[in-house]
Amino acid sequence: MDRAVENRVHVKQVAIVGGTHGNEVTGVSIVKHWQRSEAQFERFSTLNVVTHLANLKAIAENRRYLDRDLNRCFQFSELDDGKRVLYEECRAKALDQLFGRRAEQRADFVIDLHTTTSNMGSSIVITERDPLTYSLAAYLSHVVPDLKVYYKEVNQSESPYLFSLGRLGGVLIEIGPTPQGVLRFDVYQKTLTLIEETLLFLEKWNQSDLPELPDAIPAYQFIESLLLPRTPEGELNGMIHEHIQDRDVHPLKRGEPIFRLLSGETVLFEPDSDETFYPVFVNEAAYYDQLKGLSLMKGIELSST
Amino acid sequence: MDRAVENRVHVKQVAIVGGTHGNEVTGVSIVKHWQRSEAQFERFSTLNVVTHLANLKAIAENRRYLDRDLNRCFQFSELDDGKRVLYEECRAKALDQLFGRRAEQRADFVIDLHTTTSNMGSSIVITERDPLTYSLAAYLSHVVPDLKVYYKEVNQSESPYLFSLGRLGGVLIEIGPTPQGVLRFDVYQKTLTLIEETLLFLEKWNQSDLPELPDAIPAYQFIESLLLPRTPEGELNGMIHEHIQDRDVHPLKRGEPIFRLLSGETVLFEPDSDETFYPVFVNEAAYYDQLKGLSLMKGIELSST
Repeated sequence: MDRAVENRVHVKQVAIVGGTHGNEVTGVSIVKHWQRSEAQFERFSTLNVVTHLANLKAIAENRRYLDRDLNRCFQFSELDDGKRVLYEECRAKALDQLFGRRAEQRADFVIDLHTTTSNMGSSIVITERDPLTYSLAAYLSHVVPDLKVYYKEVNQSESPYLFSLGRLGGVLIEIGPTPQGVLRFDVYQKTLTLIEETLLFLEKWNQSDLPELPDAIPAYQFIESLLLPRTPEGELNGMIHEHIQDRDVHPLKRGEPIFRLLSGETVLFEPDSDETFYPVFVNEAAYYDQLKGLSLMKGIELSST
Repeated sequence: MDRAVENRVHVKQVAIVGGTHGNEVTGVSIVKHWQRSEAQFERFSTLNVVTHLANLKAIAENRRYLDRDLNRCFQFSELDDGKRVLYEECRAKALDQLFGRRAEQRADFVIDLHTTTSNMGSSIVITERDPLTYSLAAYLSHVVPDLKVYYKEVNQSESPYLFSLGRLGGVLIEIGPTPQGVLRFDVYQKTLTLIEETLLFLEKWNQSDLPELPDAIPAYQFIESLLLPRTPEGELNGMIHEHIQDRDVHPLKRGEPIFRLLSGETVLFEPDSDETFYPVFVNEAAYYDQLKGLSLMKGIELSST
């Protein structure tokens, strides 16, 4: 990690964001609680931590979003497009003003809080592998047992995700399983742990006080989404097979059961290649609007640029 | 059960209803599948089974309801009140016309399909204990392992529930846990089993072919709902304690943990009486609109009138 140390940039402004999806109430509850209790983060002497609620109307209505998914609205070209008028598009511009490119005090790093109905445990999504972001992923993998790291390569300016507003980087925290609209203690606690460890990492990063980190860590990279079985008219005609329900990030091979039709028949997994795949977001409630049943990932060794 | 046999009434018209809550997609999927495949129930020679989707707009929007909970709209006085104009109030009147009091072919018996985010397994709710309804509960308790029977005493004309439209009776099937908006095979299968066994019971009832049933069965009766911790301003300030999360229908005694405040503190259960209580609907997503955390039940011995 010598290169990381050489390139070290100082992270000062940190934004923690809840309610990017209005019915993922864990992040909403954490941020509201901290705002009410005027939580202090003074134990992190090098950081200035602020909290935000992102999709205010969706939070009030306990819905994922009103007009479109807020966490797909942050491509810079969209943020700069004055003709975008949907609620979430306007909200994205406002957040960009609050702590993004247009902010007086721009966030150096953004922590975006999410939950999933899938059995994914503690996981993070990152879109960069610069020294700062890679080191965070390696650090969290070290201190949080069973953490899964999902890597989706995308340029900051082209990233649709809220956490790309961070000047130096950002991370999406994704914890499950929990139903939408429900606050579970186990999920709440795992979220708090990942926030705390991320802030601790940033503090240690600033103070050049990190433990030695490996040059590469196991991670998962998105390949494609698989659609649920549909009728010729496009109606839902099946579901995730019980063989893979609740088994996110377990290997899935050719010929194994993947779907059950409503008629009871089993559909087998028949991929084009003989690779080992890892289903993630298995039976995620939020993806039923597009009838997506799961995301296929491949295992990778993630290293820093 | 001699009295039941003497009083035996014939059940012919059976209505199976899905989507009374639009985001409880298990019942919706079952009913849509049967309507598409023109499912035949000819193996039940004494029954005429029809299927209905109840809250059509809520199903389309994947929400519990639009204006108010449809499953609270079936008091006869409300159905007869022409000034009720909310969507669900109008829909209740239409269902009353389709298979209720105003129907040409009134349903003798109504099976209403529900799911819960709580860990309640297979359960039924009944509001009567006449020989027909009691015998159904006793029969299902006999053939479905771990079935829980919830009894809420309420007159048919005053019942707010959809299944009270049945001339001779009805039952609410409640299966969990599943997130809202998600179709899980285990929940789907348990729902199909309870539907099948209910139809089989009605067939045997008509044919005087029931096995011997006990004179009383264990059941649970609703006492009160407990609210989640709130701030003085009425905002959510805590959650279900991990001690009782996922432990629906386990006994809860004075002094045991019941809530966690967002600050981390534990709140103990301090009831007025020394009875043993059974929490049910623990952390049910649908009840957050009123910030209800659980329903307290007491154990009863249910017998027929």
